[in-house]
Amino acid sequence: MIKVSVMYPNAPGARFNHEYYRDKHMPLVKSRMGASCKYYTVDKGLAGGAPGAPAPYAAMCHIYCDSIEAFQGGFGPHAKEIMGDIPNYTDQSPVVQISEVVVG
Amino acid sequence: MIKVSVMYPNAPGARFNHEYYRDKHMPLVKSRMGASCKYYTVDKGLAGGAPGAPAPYAAMCHIYCDSIEAFQGGFGPHAKEIMGDIPNYTDQSPVVQISEVVVG
Repeated sequence: MIKVSVMYPNAPGARFNHEYYRDKHMPLVKSRMGASCKYYTVDKGLAGGAPGAPAPYAAMCHIYCDSIEAFQGGFGPHAKEIMGDIPNYTDQSPVVQISEVVVG
Repeated sequence: MIKVSVMYPNAPGARFNHEYYRDKHMPLVKSRMGASCKYYTVDKGLAGGAPGAPAPYAAMCHIYCDSIEAFQGGFGPHAKEIMGDIPNYTDQSPVVQISEVVVG
């Protein structure tokens, strides 16, 4: 299994609407990707590792798929719509990582 | 629930022993943290978001705990031993984030 992690930098002054992200954007992603998205998780950044340090990322999601091809097949046809929704909850450009799930 | 994400930058030339991380380091973390670590996951970076882009992180782990206090209580007493094991699998300093699990 693979996961696609989408991580929104917690830049100074960054805008991020966690409610919209949880209630609107991620359900949109799931509805468009259908079964190619097995499930997803959502994180809200609280803190960094050092005392008093801010979270590096304001929020993250992790989308779990059987393979990179399954992700591309499910996401690709809807990429324009999904990415067009990003300004509705943030002014940040996400960092994206595709990972193999070694321990799930 | 919270998760502590430990993310190792995939710097050019970075060293990362994924087998040691999976088979030795993360079991060490779990054994020392005991029940304060409810469970953990491990990712191996495959790719970035853009075609041909490298993964931003060589590897990540996510440690799930009931609260920040539970993490600190379980990890703190063993931090020196656990962090002292890092050079055995990488030459990178991890980026650490504590997140609230919004959708788990």
